[in-house]
Amino acid sequence: MATQNENIFLNSSGYTVNPDLEAERKTASFNIELLTNILDGGAENTRMRRAVNAVIESDPEFNIQNEYFQSQSEKYENSVRRSVHLRKKMEEMGWSKNGPELVYCYRAVYNALAFNVHRVFINCILGLGSDEQIAKWVPLAEKYYIAGTYAQTELGHGTYLRGLETTAAFDATTQEFILNTPSISAMKWWPGDLGQTATHAVVFAQLYLKGKCYGMHPFMVQIRSLRDHSPAPGVTVGDIGPKMSFNNVDNGFLSLKNVRVPRENMLSRFSQVLPNGQYVKKGSEKINYLTMMVIRAGMLPTEVIPTLMKACTIAIRYSVVRRQSELKPGDQEAKILDYQTQQEKLLPQLATAYGLHFAYNYVHNIFQKAYADTKEGKFDLLPELHALLSGIKVIATDYCSAGVEVCRRACGGHGYSLLSGLPTLYNRLVASCTYEGENTVLLLQTARFLIKCIRMAHDGHPLPSSVAYLSSKTSEKCKAQEKRDFLNPSVYIEAYRHRALRNVRSTAVKLQALIQSGVAQYEAWNRCSVQLAHAAVDHIHYIVVEKFVHALEDLETEAAIQRILKHLCDLFALHGIFSNTGGFVQDGYLSQEQVDMVTESYLDLLTIIRKHAVPLVDAFDFTDTNLNSALGSYDGQAYQRLYEWAKKSPTNHQGNRVFNTYLKPLFQNALSKL
Amino acid sequence: MATQNENIFLNSSGYTVNPDLEAERKTASFNIELLTNILDGGAENTRMRRAVNAVIESDPEFNIQNEYFQSQSEKYENSVRRSVHLRKKMEEMGWSKNGPELVYCYRAVYNALAFNVHRVFINCILGLGSDEQIAKWVPLAEKYYIAGTYAQTELGHGTYLRGLETTAAFDATTQEFILNTPSISAMKWWPGDLGQTATHAVVFAQLYLKGKCYGMHPFMVQIRSLRDHSPAPGVTVGDIGPKMSFNNVDNGFLSLKNVRVPRENMLSRFSQVLPNGQYVKKGSEKINYLTMMVIRAGMLPTEVIPTLMKACTIAIRYSVVRRQSELKPGDQEAKILDYQTQQEKLLPQLATAYGLHFAYNYVHNIFQKAYADTKEGKFDLLPELHALLSGIKVIATDYCSAGVEVCRRACGGHGYSLLSGLPTLYNRLVASCTYEGENTVLLLQTARFLIKCIRMAHDGHPLPSSVAYLSSKTSEKCKAQEKRDFLNPSVYIEAYRHRALRNVRSTAVKLQALIQSGVAQYEAWNRCSVQLAHAAVDHIHYIVVEKFVHALEDLETEAAIQRILKHLCDLFALHGIFSNTGGFVQDGYLSQEQVDMVTESYLDLLTIIRKHAVPLVDAFDFTDTNLNSALGSYDGQAYQRLYEWAKKSPTNHQGNRVFNTYLKPLFQNALSKL
Repeated sequence: MATQNENIFLNSSGYTVNPDLEAERKTASFNIELLTNILDGGAENTRMRRAVNAVIESDPEFNIQNEYFQSQSEKYENSVRRSVHLRKKMEEMGWSKNGPELVYCYRAVYNALAFNVHRVFINCILGLGSDEQIAKWVPLAEKYYIAGTYAQTELGHGTYLRGLETTAAFDATTQEFILNTPSISAMKWWPGDLGQTATHAVVFAQLYLKGKCYGMHPFMVQIRSLRDHSPAPGVTVGDIGPKMSFNNVDNGFLSLKNVRVPRENMLSRFSQVLPNGQYVKKGSEKINYLTMMVIRAGMLPTEVIPTLMKACTIAIRYSVVRRQSELKPGDQEAKILDYQTQQEKLLPQLATAYGLHFAYNYVHNIFQKAYADTKEGKFDLLPELHALLSGIKVIATDYCSAGVEVCRRACGGHGYSLLSGLPTLYNRLVASCTYEGENTVLLLQTARFLIKCIRMAHDGHPLPSSVAYLSSKTSEKCKAQEKRDFLNPSVYIEAYRHRALRNVRSTAVKLQALIQSGVAQYEAWNRCSVQLAHAAVDHIHYIVVEKFVHALEDLETEAAIQRILKHLCDLFALHGIFSNTGGFVQDGYLSQEQVDMVTESYLDLLTIIRKHAVPLVDAFDFTDTNLNSALGSYDGQAYQRLYEWAKKSPTNHQGNRVFNTYLKPLFQNALSKL
Repeated sequence: MATQNENIFLNSSGYTVNPDLEAERKTASFNIELLTNILDGGAENTRMRRAVNAVIESDPEFNIQNEYFQSQSEKYENSVRRSVHLRKKMEEMGWSKNGPELVYCYRAVYNALAFNVHRVFINCILGLGSDEQIAKWVPLAEKYYIAGTYAQTELGHGTYLRGLETTAAFDATTQEFILNTPSISAMKWWPGDLGQTATHAVVFAQLYLKGKCYGMHPFMVQIRSLRDHSPAPGVTVGDIGPKMSFNNVDNGFLSLKNVRVPRENMLSRFSQVLPNGQYVKKGSEKINYLTMMVIRAGMLPTEVIPTLMKACTIAIRYSVVRRQSELKPGDQEAKILDYQTQQEKLLPQLATAYGLHFAYNYVHNIFQKAYADTKEGKFDLLPELHALLSGIKVIATDYCSAGVEVCRRACGGHGYSLLSGLPTLYNRLVASCTYEGENTVLLLQTARFLIKCIRMAHDGHPLPSSVAYLSSKTSEKCKAQEKRDFLNPSVYIEAYRHRALRNVRSTAVKLQALIQSGVAQYEAWNRCSVQLAHAAVDHIHYIVVEKFVHALEDLETEAAIQRILKHLCDLFALHGIFSNTGGFVQDGYLSQEQVDMVTESYLDLLTIIRKHAVPLVDAFDFTDTNLNSALGSYDGQAYQRLYEWAKKSPTNHQGNRVFNTYLKPLFQNALSKL
């Protein structure tokens, strides 16, 4: 930055709270701390979360304030440094690697760590390895004496595992597997930690025994030297380059040419190759299936939902600090949150963040039950759980990504600055719509389960609890008489149930009709797939609304909090109807008059919740460091921070090279003329 | 990148066309070159565009291949270098600075140039300056002897010009204006070219004469030395730091403390301050109002619509090259474009790109007429034109941004790599929803015009042509009997007209009722603003559908092209109904049976257009260099390019520092154990 006489508007620290923001906090109708405790699952969790966060924030090694100025390589280096330091810190603090503190550590610095897939690598060995393999590899990995990655996805192959091309052929003479990447599309591509870090990889490859393919199996492969990090013989490995975000992670590529590993390196909990080349299957992999679900479920409370909560915090605080235009003629410029259009952008996102938080708790509980069952060898809940988790992963990642972007755009030009924090939140979060199961693929898996349930119901079989309604009758008409009826949860739950039931059923009918008309099953499925995906969304949306309502019933002892959350729940439900009226009216379930009632109730709720908006985001309890946003800090001094942070930008510390090289030769022509 | 034995899958150039892509081109039902000519507005334009593009592409100075690897500072430096070079190149080629070649230059390298606001600076002087001021400043700026910017937006103030705080007080004793930035929120913030380049700025400030405020006026202020680029006395200036994109542009901040400029530096075409401090108003600024509209309109064909066209080109080509999962059991993996869900993502975006292209042509024609009128002192068309342009700017930027992101996500994981080109297209384009008029603000301006028209119609006054339908009766029911009736443009145009008319009218009724019930006008407006914004969208969507249909009528002599564009037009219209059924069914205009017909017709169209998808994107005629995408090149060798480009990433040329510093000390512990 070039400056002749430094501005004197600012103290570099110790801002007082912006009075426009302070005023918002004075009107809180509920105890913010109590709501924070509820969100944390208890006051003790809040205490521990804050303690961990304080440790992290007070350690300069974890400082991420300059991340918006860093190149991909700088981000990577800092993440490696922090990850190595975190391991030490955890030992020092006595935090267990599977304990609650780790979750809170991740909440504080997750976006700025490396070695994330290293943990998947460890879990993979624990899940797929024999006891000997676990004993050999896991301790080395836990201590970071080796760095691992999980190499499954290939350049030309993702979701469809049978399509993977990498091969592992057994050579009985040397008792080795020979791994090969037979084509460019077979290169491993995308694994995290592979690009510049990993020394080892669990490589998934088609197992060949005497020329016969036995399908995908996992192999432990050393890919780089522990001594000098050079690639192992036959290995080509590198970084896949810059991404939309996640540039702290070194996603990589890997190509293998006649790479030999000993027979013991096939992870063999579920199947094994004997020295003579015989294939032996051992036990069910169903339990392992659950492990994949753990990852898919774990994303939501750690990465997905909190990201929307952060975006809401930033955008709502900024919207009471930013003043723009006259609302009432002659008044000072109005807080932008007082405009109905701004409320309609932000408050439904706030309701969504709360709704998904509570709906996830429900899924988590089913999940715990299924996990307990599985340990006893019962796998009955798995199909339902898979359909539910797939669906809620889609809804959560889709709604949260879209919501973050709505928040970002609602901050106008300043939301476009990286210093607002919002572009990074969006660019990172939107990846979750693709990883851990591409959303359209997952929706169709949920739909497949729903169609199966419709058929079961048709044949008189009982249905699992989350889909039991599929065997009920559709209601004809909504019974609401006036707009306040739409604040009755049973009214809107019924509307969502009706929509889901009608859509799942009518799509099942279409599918059946196509098949009966002679269309091949696969073709009929494809021709219904747009509608199947919609039906799955409607089903999950219904579940989320219903579980949000149920969660509130547990809060009876906290009337003030229950009241405000009830408003949010109503808003979440009515926003869904207001924004997708078609599904509720096309068969006459809602009349035009009822749509008008929904609209009026919905708009009324905006005014109500607007008053509590700041306390409701304060309850998420993100520190300024967590948010890392010039717009969203607790003190509301958005303009001062934007200016302070901008001054630190490297673009202001470049010297005069561009001027001297390109501009001076031109500008000097004007000297004589001005 | 670390590599032991280099892969041999690749030649570094001269790929043959991927047979999966080649096959798509063989089925083209129309002459692609002819469609390209139509899009260009004639074969001669196509020829000139290609000639200009070829000149740019053959000049290594304009090479942008490495842009995905560059830091903000590198991007800026390269953009300055290219811009200076482009000026030379244009002289060398004899291309006029206002000629058609410049448009084609921008198409080729726009995203990688600096000095873009410099042109706004020049236009501002031409529009607001006196003849003497134009004669003094414009030649200097045209030759780049000075670099200018347009400093209007402030840190705390955007849309609402009356809220701007910068002051300019006249000092009659020295015949100077004294400019000041009275608070931090008054700093100029965001102007392009200001951060590191500009020597001069047109600064908008509240004019004070003898203590009385005369409102916003433009002042020419030198902000940096031409000799050494240091800030002028009293000036604080710098770069606002990293953004979501546009990092080639040095958006800046500017603070002024008692900066004095001579009286002659107030741009004085429309008003002047005499030596005695007297204020003199001269003529109407309405013509200047049109200049702002020129900028807003100019974005669409140069930046907004082509960006969606590029994204469609990349995603559709990739979708016939990418194979994933079995569609028909036992077959090879299917091209992902053969999945209905993929078609439903991409093909409506393709239809939108074509639809907006043709609808823009209509707006452009009205615009030309208004411009001619204005020169004759007639301003009658301006309010209509303003409402139309505001609305179409919103629709185009919203739909194109959303569409680009749909295309990006439809490319799965690889769409997340910067090398796909897609993240950059989105991150850049989405800014257009905010700049040149924030979209919600613009929608409400369009709505204000519509409400005024409803009142005029009510009072029996005639309405301008684009809104004449607001005085017609609403039709009761859609007359379609079977699904193919929805391929009749008059049927869907009527449906869109009905929706717009009902929504504009019902919102006007609500507004009026609120006011009559005693709610203050400003408050009533705010309480209707969500619905007003929706009504404005419905109005503009109707216009776009109608103008798309009309554009096709001009293509009667080209039957094959007319036929395929008719399919796209149908798809655009039916996609809008399918995705927003509510607006069409809530008052019973469409019955449930008709909604089902729309759905079936819509899904049928996907199958039809899928066959022509590649020829339809080829017709956009982007070169590989224009696209700069590893996924979307003409030859369809997506995987090879991803690999070739990734190898060039700086992350693969960092040496062993991170390993030696952080990892080696850990890994050496494993040496004895493995």
